[in-house]
Amino acid sequence: MKLKNYALGKWVAGKGEGAPLFNAITGETVATATSSGLDFGEMMQYGREVGNPALRKMTFHERGRMIKKLALYLHKCREQFYPISYWTGATKSDSWVDIDGGIGTLFAYASLRKKFPNESYYVDGEMANLSKGGTFIGHHIMVPKRGVAVHINAFNFPVWGMLEKVAVNLLAGVPAIVKPATITSFLTEAVVREIIKSKILPKGAIQLICGSARGILDHVESQDIVTFTGSASTGQMLKAHPRIISEAVPFNMEADSLNCAVLGPDAVPGTAEFDLFVKEVRREMVTKCGQKCTAIRRIIVPKKMVDDVQAALSKQLAGTVIGDPQVKGVRMGALAGKVQVEEVKERIAEISKNAEIVYGKSGRFKVTGANKKDGAFMSPTLMVQSKPRKHMEVHNIEAFGPVSTIIPYKNIEDAIDLANLGMGSLVSTIVTANEKTARDYVLGAATHHGRIQVLNEACAKESTGHGGHARGETLHATHRRTRTSNDGDSRDQRFPNRRSTN
Amino acid sequence: MKLKNYALGKWVAGKGEGAPLFNAITGETVATATSSGLDFGEMMQYGREVGNPALRKMTFHERGRMIKKLALYLHKCREQFYPISYWTGATKSDSWVDIDGGIGTLFAYASLRKKFPNESYYVDGEMANLSKGGTFIGHHIMVPKRGVAVHINAFNFPVWGMLEKVAVNLLAGVPAIVKPATITSFLTEAVVREIIKSKILPKGAIQLICGSARGILDHVESQDIVTFTGSASTGQMLKAHPRIISEAVPFNMEADSLNCAVLGPDAVPGTAEFDLFVKEVRREMVTKCGQKCTAIRRIIVPKKMVDDVQAALSKQLAGTVIGDPQVKGVRMGALAGKVQVEEVKERIAEISKNAEIVYGKSGRFKVTGANKKDGAFMSPTLMVQSKPRKHMEVHNIEAFGPVSTIIPYKNIEDAIDLANLGMGSLVSTIVTANEKTARDYVLGAATHHGRIQVLNEACAKESTGHGGHARGETLHATHRRTRTSNDGDSRDQRFPNRRSTN
Repeated sequence: MKLKNYALGKWVAGKGEGAPLFNAITGETVATATSSGLDFGEMMQYGREVGNPALRKMTFHERGRMIKKLALYLHKCREQFYPISYWTGATKSDSWVDIDGGIGTLFAYASLRKKFPNESYYVDGEMANLSKGGTFIGHHIMVPKRGVAVHINAFNFPVWGMLEKVAVNLLAGVPAIVKPATITSFLTEAVVREIIKSKILPKGAIQLICGSARGILDHVESQDIVTFTGSASTGQMLKAHPRIISEAVPFNMEADSLNCAVLGPDAVPGTAEFDLFVKEVRREMVTKCGQKCTAIRRIIVPKKMVDDVQAALSKQLAGTVIGDPQVKGVRMGALAGKVQVEEVKERIAEISKNAEIVYGKSGRFKVTGANKKDGAFMSPTLMVQSKPRKHMEVHNIEAFGPVSTIIPYKNIEDAIDLANLGMGSLVSTIVTANEKTARDYVLGAATHHGRIQVLNEACAKESTGHGGHARGETLHATHRRTRTSNDGDSRDQRFPNRRSTN
Repeated sequence: MKLKNYALGKWVAGKGEGAPLFNAITGETVATATSSGLDFGEMMQYGREVGNPALRKMTFHERGRMIKKLALYLHKCREQFYPISYWTGATKSDSWVDIDGGIGTLFAYASLRKKFPNESYYVDGEMANLSKGGTFIGHHIMVPKRGVAVHINAFNFPVWGMLEKVAVNLLAGVPAIVKPATITSFLTEAVVREIIKSKILPKGAIQLICGSARGILDHVESQDIVTFTGSASTGQMLKAHPRIISEAVPFNMEADSLNCAVLGPDAVPGTAEFDLFVKEVRREMVTKCGQKCTAIRRIIVPKKMVDDVQAALSKQLAGTVIGDPQVKGVRMGALAGKVQVEEVKERIAEISKNAEIVYGKSGRFKVTGANKKDGAFMSPTLMVQSKPRKHMEVHNIEAFGPVSTIIPYKNIEDAIDLANLGMGSLVSTIVTANEKTARDYVLGAATHHGRIQVLNEACAKESTGHGGHARGETLHATHRRTRTSNDGDSRDQRFPNRRSTN
């Protein structure tokens, strides 16, 4: 099957054979993808000239109802996406986060329409009276940009990754060009096929590129927006693109994030919090094979509890059934591809140069219902870095798989410093029943974290979890989002409310 | 007089002779400036390690009262800055905008403390309840960044340019390093001397570089902020600096702005609005010799009124007395220096290649109380560009002096399109008594303008004017600021409330 691109209102096959895309479980080729022959400049202009005027003249309520209609439509046909999702190596519950979770973001943004007036623009904040007589006043208004949003997405959530971004631009009245990561683009394409078939969106509101989008940034203009999710190296290269700079295009980058979980000094073995901590870390390590931007990469624990955490976690990891997601009992599927396995192993090698691998070192692990050789399987891997100020790899290198490292800390100030060495992370969790510890940590780590979860026995039952997607909820309004007074998140995140469950 | 730098808590002379700085009226050397020998990396670290902790632990109320105290102190000694300001070529009223206006921003930000709690952090927005039982909730908090704000400022407002930025970072709990444009840094230095003398700010809260700051961006880290006001070419170069990109440092650029004023179709000669329009444009052309980021560069008028506007404006410009600002009757002083005069003339040459100069072509003009040859004087210059879609120079080239160009339009949609060809401007003014015209223009031009002034007879008496500083008011809360839904102003302006009267 050769994937098609959706450009200028038509499904278009790219030229040439295209890159082969594989089933992550069996290794079989399931599709090919090529965008060769597409004119990205024309696509951008089509978005600006056809999609943008159609969306910008709609009111927020109209846009919201349109998004809701689309969500209902996709919800009805969502079952057909699951078989395709298994090709990516995802389990049913991983897929649910991606597919139902993605559709959930549409529902959530559709509801947000109620916070806006039934107008195509939005009057923001209070009127400022600038004159005694009241003849001269000030007011902020917000209108849709006249450009197009280019979304360059990561491979791990082919559905959610698209929908969480598209929900925003559609409500804002701006069209999108979606560029999923090629390796799992077959799933994104399947969803876009249904979006187009539904005829719910106006012409030009969405376009799709399956394959390379190299060169697309040569065509951005000052009213466009670019969002990027992926590796820091690629993101930084794109962010410095001459057109991004000269046209002052908002560039929203979500890249490597060395998220951490901190075990409070009070949460000693035997407490409910200790168990919650271990459970949370294990879940973050194995869900989606650890291929989540929010996955816990650094496990920061009191020095004297390192052994306890290591033992408890290793035990739980040993119980994880790895294999074909469609086989009953399997808890962890495969990485998205063999290339990913190799890459994660390279990262582990870099980190473990100065750290000890305490679980998963041998490479021996059992695969259920699939051929270990053919699929992109790997064992969860746990390390211990006992000198986290000397060896900085643990704070800098993201192994995008079921990989995490235990780090000892001395006191809560030390834990905050270590957490902040991640140089800006999406999420952090502090597990403690002590309110002062929670407060100190949150205020101390807020500068460097997009969201901080405080977890303890009292809230555990209702908590949506570190990654925020335990129930597939859309967390746009739910983040403990920390912001500095200068409106810059620790990473460059200018799309309002766009960070949710990745 | 050799200016000093204020670094690491001490006044330090730079090495070497330094660059000579001139009196713009007489051409005499009034000071020299050099930053040679300063260690910018150390200065940044000093700000982070000494200034930042001192400010971040203060509450918003404490910071606000500190700013107020500083404002009162500077207000008391402000008279001593005026004689120095005259060296920059500014008139008394230009200087008042810079000096009293700058101090005014301190007062305004000091008052803003009341919008914040008496805490070192800020709880933003409403709580989001994420659970039925209410045990798991979400809340945004804002805390001070752990870095330092580097302010790279323009030459035109040596006092206001510093204070409007410093007011923000001080209230936010972040220290600053101020790098004024060298050419007028003698005035900034005089004010910083008083700030330091007052002992009101904690150690490390402010540092000053008089002279080159080349290389300072090599030392920025992810918790720092950089603001830049100046030319687009320099700004874009700095914005693409590898450290800015790799550390994801918020970079706030305010560069070339081709602001426009639009004359409504109803505002025909004989109406109050026509007179208001001409008066407003004249004032924007001659105030500060047109060296304002907000100055009206494009005068967009109905085609049939081009001749009327040209005649009325030329007449008013002819009445402008140019000369030594300290001589009575002088309305327009000198540009900041002879280099600026040459640069403005080059820009005029570029624009007038395809446009007609209708006022100021001869270069003949009278200078009162000064020697024309010695000072950086120039005549106001008015052009007409009758083919504004063919010849784009008028929308792209900023002649940073008393220079503006008349452009004809056909109907209001055409006027909006022409306004937006500026690719994002700080301010625009529409002069009309017709509410529908005002509404159409504001909604249509909002995508490309930071602020839009609607001006007519009804509000004229109370209006603060196109540039917003007619009364030296701080317009932080007063902007008709347009924002797209994606939180990007038309230009890159991420410092909240930082745009005011430049």
